[in-house]
Order: sequence, then structure tokens, then C-alpha cells
Amino acid sequence: MQNSQDELVAVRWDGDAVVYLDQRRLPHDIVYERASTVEQIEAAIKTLAVRGAPAIGIFGAYGVALLRRTIADDDAFALAARRIRDARPTAVNLAWAVDRVLEAPDALDHARGIHREQVAIDAAIAQAGIDVIPKDAKILTHCNTGPIATAGGGTALGVIIAAHRDGKRPHVFVDETRPLLQGSRLTYFELKQAGVDATLQVDSAAAIAMQRKAIDLVIVGADRIARNGDTANKIGTYGLAILAAHHGIPFYVAAPRSTIDFSIATGADIPIEERAAAEVTGFGGAHAATQDARVYNPAFDVTPGHLIAGIVTEYGVSRTPYQETIPALAGRASFAALLDLQ
Amino acid sequence: MQNSQDELVAVRWDGDAVVYLDQRRLPHDIVYERASTVEQIEAAIKTLAVRGAPAIGIFGAYGVALLRRTIADDDAFALAARRIRDARPTAVNLAWAVDRVLEAPDALDHARGIHREQVAIDAAIAQAGIDVIPKDAKILTHCNTGPIATAGGGTALGVIIAAHRDGKRPHVFVDETRPLLQGSRLTYFELKQAGVDATLQVDSAAAIAMQRKAIDLVIVGADRIARNGDTANKIGTYGLAILAAHHGIPFYVAAPRSTIDFSIATGADIPIEERAAAEVTGFGGAHAATQDARVYNPAFDVTPGHLIAGIVTEYGVSRTPYQETIPALAGRASFAALLDLQ
Repeated sequence: MQNSQDELVAVRWDGDAVVYLDQRRLPHDIVYERASTVEQIEAAIKTLAVRGAPAIGIFGAYGVALLRRTIADDDAFALAARRIRDARPTAVNLAWAVDRVLEAPDALDHARGIHREQVAIDAAIAQAGIDVIPKDAKILTHCNTGPIATAGGGTALGVIIAAHRDGKRPHVFVDETRPLLQGSRLTYFELKQAGVDATLQVDSAAAIAMQRKAIDLVIVGADRIARNGDTANKIGTYGLAILAAHHGIPFYVAAPRSTIDFSIATGADIPIEERAAAEVTGFGGAHAATQDARVYNPAFDVTPGHLIAGIVTEYGVSRTPYQETIPALAGRASFAALLDLQ
Repeated sequence: MQNSQDELVAVRWDGDAVVYLDQRRLPHDIVYERASTVEQIEAAIKTLAVRGAPAIGIFGAYGVALLRRTIADDDAFALAARRIRDARPTAVNLAWAVDRVLEAPDALDHARGIHREQVAIDAAIAQAGIDVIPKDAKILTHCNTGPIATAGGGTALGVIIAAHRDGKRPHVFVDETRPLLQGSRLTYFELKQAGVDATLQVDSAAAIAMQRKAIDLVIVGADRIARNGDTANKIGTYGLAILAAHHGIPFYVAAPRSTIDFSIATGADIPIEERAAAEVTGFGGAHAATQDARVYNPAFDVTPGHLIAGIVTEYGVSRTPYQETIPALAGRASFAALLDLQ
């Protein structure tokens, strides 16, 4: 078995630099780069060389900790930290992590703490999720939820990789995940790196795979979860949940508690972001439709809780009635507190 | 309104050449080419400049009729006709059409007859299908079933275009149809050419479109239909039928009677062709996954008859119980006989 966890490290502290895996070059080239200046750190985030909200947060935290050491002038450091914080305005993890590091008495120690917390949360999700994976399971997944997205063990993919290491020999059918092809580019690659059997397919092959390939379960990640279990995730997830129900296949979600928005009652309160037409009219550098085509490109959809067999978090597997089991998670101690990271 | 039927002609006889639309260059360039030698006719078929089984058959028929006029020597002509017939061995329409032309007393007259028969069948499908399209219908379709594939009016897309001309103002949500993107490249383009409102989406957006865009019906073509209504069609069709059932949306198939295989009882008897991995790992020169990826690439899937609200043929809309209504079509007079083309 390949021990890939050592090989595929999204972000790593290296004493005088933050080392990162250049995700833009995957799966064709595995290239690690070193960022040691504010320009290099900012560029790695802006160019999507580092992607995945948790991974960006950890990278930014290490980056600010590094600059705290290399920039003696306080004003210059504050400006540099601001540049990192603003490198991707929509990535809430980034601003949150940078702010925490700036407020901490020891910047590097705190960045390491954020990273350890992520690793611990992912490990707890994986451990909890193993129980829903039968031996020799055929599993279908969608989008990318692996180690390189979280800089930890991953969420849904973390569960699968953990099941593999537990000797359950899963075989994973990977949806390519149009339009941005995270399944082809990242998930299939991460599974192969981890030594997990995998087969790539177009998204619309999911139904026949369920019908003819004896799929045992579907497991995906989440972008946002409402109090009743309604789950926003990458476009295509809702359809998969319907197909799974039709074939009598359990459908699971794996995500950290931080994904749950305890302020919203149902998925109807989750706005659906629509993204650029060019994502759909093109593929890589190739153009399929003309670029003036009218396009419907919702970034995600909402799967109703009643189609979800279980939601795996770092606190275990929550099941219906979600109206009761999900709000109960709000009161649990944070992993930062458990790890004494505050 | 654009009258596009005149603009988009897959194949046309031109006295001393067969004119064809180069489908490889769509949707970016609308280019007609003239084929007047055996080399040119053969190349147009082999390179997929002309595609769509009925369109290839008609193109081959005209091609052989043209060569009959330009090649005086009988042996040389026989060799040339054989080259056309074998240009795509798996396209049964091509061999069938060439053989019919070779046996006919007047080659050109017979090629024209084959073309007229196709146009008449497509028109009858369109006419029959109009009744299932409500006014201001929001319609979802998959793959390409338009005029350029049949050299007539098209099948499922022919129904939609006819409904548009009938004043029903349909709006069509077009699945891009991975892996070969016939929806992006051809269907969206054909609809725009015909003046029909259309929106392009990734295949996995079909579920949210049904949920949030008030889709009234789904209509698709077919590759092969069993006696019980089970329908093989482009990969993704089966999933669409399940999603439609979940949302209470009627799901229709439009195809000529020649698509029905009266020799098979159910879809279980239809073999599923698996195609090259490269279709999934890349598109148009762009590579998403590594080329050694293990891929599941079924070219089509089988939708059970019980998920299909109606099957539109040139003889009208057949409905359940298909075990009775489909076999009844076998006894109907052929359109060739109706048109006195024999």
C-alpha cells in the first residue's frame, strides 16, 4: 500500500517558508513550492495554487506567522497581513484564520494549532464515518473532499481513505463533476495516491452505475447544512440523492460542524450562487458552445434532509429526525477546546 | 423569426456534388463543403464532418448516385460504392442506403426517395409530438436529435422546433451531454438557429432545473427501443427519467419506428457499449484526468418503459401498456410505401 498521506500534503510549515502543493498542476504534475515572501504567499492563494477553504485558511495562518518573523516593522507587517487576509475575499476561513493568528501571543504556535485542529476534526469525521462503510463497499462520490482541500485528512474522501486503511477495500466511482472537474482532476488522483481502487465516470453515468455496478452507498461533502439537515453541496448532489433513493442506496454527507449554519431552519434559506457561463461553455482550454450562449450554472444545489441517511461530523453520525439531532450538535465542546488550542 | 430550416441543411444534392454541413466546425463556424469525388465523400464520413446515422445514410446514398454518373467503368464504380458503404462500418443506415441505391433502376431518384422518406418520417414525428407540448412549455432535453443528425427535421428536437413554429413558445434547457458534448456543440446551436429560446446547463444541473425552473416535460431521442418500451439512449437518459418521475414531470421519447427492435422483449436484451476512456479524461485537446485513469464510459443506458409517459413515432404517440401498443406498430405500412418510393 502506498502511504500517500506523507506524499500529498496541501500545506506544510518548513521553518523559513510555507510549502504548498500546486493544485493547479494536478493531476499531471506533483509539484511543491515554497512561499517565503508576502508576494509569494498572496500569489499562491490568488492563483488557486492553494484551494479548498480549510487549506487556504491554514496556508494563510502559516503565511502570517512567517511574515511576523521576517518583517520587523510593525506597520509593514500589518500591511502584509492585510494583503494575505484579503487575497480571496469570499474565503471566510482565510480571514478567520489570519485574524486568530494576529490576535495570538505566539503567531506560529497558533497557526500550528489551527492546523492541528483541522487534522483532528478530519480524523474524527473519518473515524465516525468508517462505520457506515461496509466491507468491499462500492461507493459513489462527487466533487473533491480530500486531504488537499482541507490540509487535513479530508471529509467524505477522508472517510473513504480511512475505510481503505481499515482494510475495508472500498472501490470508488468518482463523478468527474462538471463544470470544474474536481472529480477528474483531484478526487480520482487523491484516491490513486492513497492506493484506493477508483473508477472515473461522467456525472450522468451515476444512474447506470447505481443500477449495474452494485453501488452500496453515496458519500459527499457539504458547503452548508441547515438545522433540518437540508444540505447545500456541489451542483449534482441533489440529483444523486434522488437517484440513490430510487435505487434504495443510502446517501451520506460528511462535513465538519462548522459547515452547519445553526441560524437557518431549512435549505430554502440557502441562496444558490450562479457562476460564470464560461465554466459551462468551455472545458479546460477547449470551447464546446459559443461563448455568447445563455447558461444556467448554479454552483450548488440543496438536498432535502429526508433523502440523507446520515450526516457525519466530528461528533459522530447524526440521523433523522435532524430537527433534533442537528441542533444538539451546537452545544458540544469545540475541538479547539478539546485540544486546548485556545 | 429566423427560418433556419433553410440555413441548416445537413446534406443536399447539388447536381454535380453532394453539399454537406461540416459538423466538426459547429457551433463556431457554419461551413458547407462540396464532395464530388469518392475520396471527398469517403473523407466527409470518416472524419465525422457528416454525423448522425440517418444523415450519413442519405449522404452516402447521394454520394453513390453521384459516382454512378461520373464513373463510367462498372468495376471502378463498384469499387467506389464499396468504399462509401464501408466508410463507417458500424453505421447500419449507411450500408442499408447504399445497397438500396445500388439495386435501384435510377440511383439518384432512389437517393432522393430515401431523403424524402426521412423528411416525411421526421415531419410526422414532429406533428404527432406537438400535442404533448403545452403552451409556453419549459422543456429539458439531452444529447442531439435535431435536423443535422437526420438530414430531415430531427426527432425530439424536431418536435420542439415544430412546437415553436406552432406558436407554443417553448423554452428549452439543454444538457451539455458529456462526454462528447452534443448538447453544447449541436443542440443549443440548432435551437438558436431555429429561433427557439434555450439555456445550456451541465448534465448534473438537471435536478435543480426540474426543482426550480418549472420544467413541464423532458423529451429525448432513442437509439433502440424494446417491445415493452424500454429505451436505450445516450448516457444520462435513465437518470433524467428517474429525476422527472421524482418531480412529477412527464418524460417522452421521440424516434422513428426503425428504432424499435421488435425482436427484443425488454431492455435487458440491449447490450451496453462502453467507449474509450479518453472521451472522459479529456475534451477537445484539454486533459482533466491523467490518461491512464480507469474509466467507466457506457455510451448509453436503458430507461424502463414504466418511466416513459409516451413514445412518439411517425405513427403517433404510443402509451402504456407498451407490450401492446409497441408491437402494434410493426404492422403499419411503411412511409416508403405511403410515399410510393419503392
